[in-house]
Amino acid sequence: MMKFYYAPYTCALASHIALEEAGADYEAIRIDFKSAQQLSPDYLSINPKGRVPALVTGRGVITETPAILAYVAQTNPGSELAPIDDPFAFAEVQSITSYLCSTVHPAHSHGIRGSRWADDPAALEAMKAKVPQNMTDNFNVLENRYFRGPWVMGDKYTIVDPYLFTISEWLKQDTVDINKFPRIADHFNRMKQRPAVAKAVAEERGKI
Amino acid sequence: MMKFYYAPYTCALASHIALEEAGADYEAIRIDFKSAQQLSPDYLSINPKGRVPALVTGRGVITETPAILAYVAQTNPGSELAPIDDPFAFAEVQSITSYLCSTVHPAHSHGIRGSRWADDPAALEAMKAKVPQNMTDNFNVLENRYFRGPWVMGDKYTIVDPYLFTISEWLKQDTVDINKFPRIADHFNRMKQRPAVAKAVAEERGKI
Repeated sequence: MMKFYYAPYTCALASHIALEEAGADYEAIRIDFKSAQQLSPDYLSINPKGRVPALVTGRGVITETPAILAYVAQTNPGSELAPIDDPFAFAEVQSITSYLCSTVHPAHSHGIRGSRWADDPAALEAMKAKVPQNMTDNFNVLENRYFRGPWVMGDKYTIVDPYLFTISEWLKQDTVDINKFPRIADHFNRMKQRPAVAKAVAEERGKI
Repeated sequence: MMKFYYAPYTCALASHIALEEAGADYEAIRIDFKSAQQLSPDYLSINPKGRVPALVTGRGVITETPAILAYVAQTNPGSELAPIDDPFAFAEVQSITSYLCSTVHPAHSHGIRGSRWADDPAALEAMKAKVPQNMTDNFNVLENRYFRGPWVMGDKYTIVDPYLFTISEWLKQDTVDINKFPRIADHFNRMKQRPAVAKAVAEERGKI
């Protein structure tokens, strides 16, 4: 059985949902950020970056959300979570997961984890001040240029959907009204209806 | 023929090298950042994010380095640039490309493009001050935990190698001595000997 390491309210939720959607055989293990468990020697031996998610498989550890999502799709072909036999369509999926991890997630992180990039308290405030604009810009790109509907990639639900859902949920903390992006807002509400989403969220924090 | 949009000294070099390694049929087109061509309506119609790289294929556009790298590997199986038939080994590759795009590249960007995340000039200086430490931390993780040698993933050269090479080259600007990471420094020097690297670099800027 695989072991999936997560912390609530992090991007790990995307992979957690994908594992549920795929019906994968895994055990979810919570890492306690409040006690800095992600920096404990035990956890650093699993993920030397001190972050979640991490998926421990029979062959070794996979870290980073886009890598885990693609792995879940490829190892559970019956769940059809990505167009794994069509390199171009798969690349379109990966264009979005890469954008979410490299641009949108860091745009959000500057509000709550600015100390990654600067030590001066005034700088942290300056970063925080720009988060709403950056998240708005990023979500406008997603809403207007990439979201096809009803799911992100079109008719088929894919690994992109739980990832967008996970980051969409952060907009509230970023003081950005999700309703400025009507198609993504609708997607967010529909995602909450999926049993896999409800189960992963309940496992992480008991509510949605 | 595919069109590959790049700007010199950006992460686009990684995909450019991969296209060369694969012997792909493409035309390289330079985007002039000095005149903000990446924000022109013509280019935004290709990549609404106003960034490079972008690869225009017969079926549409692929953006984001990890997505392009995987696509080049999957569509050129004979070049053996990734273990595309082994989902776990492929996930290990993608764990590194995701880490480079989501953590290491942004760590570098805070030195030269801090205005993405804050407007206050003092904040930009505070971000810049932390770049050497963050890049050192990230490269220590790569050197000590992920780099297998002689190539990043071990005996086989993969799409991860041009990506690491591209970001390794930025260490100088980040005032981090690459020789603090002996295996990566050796990798950097060996990469420069590869014809595909020399060709891509020459096409972008005429020298290495």
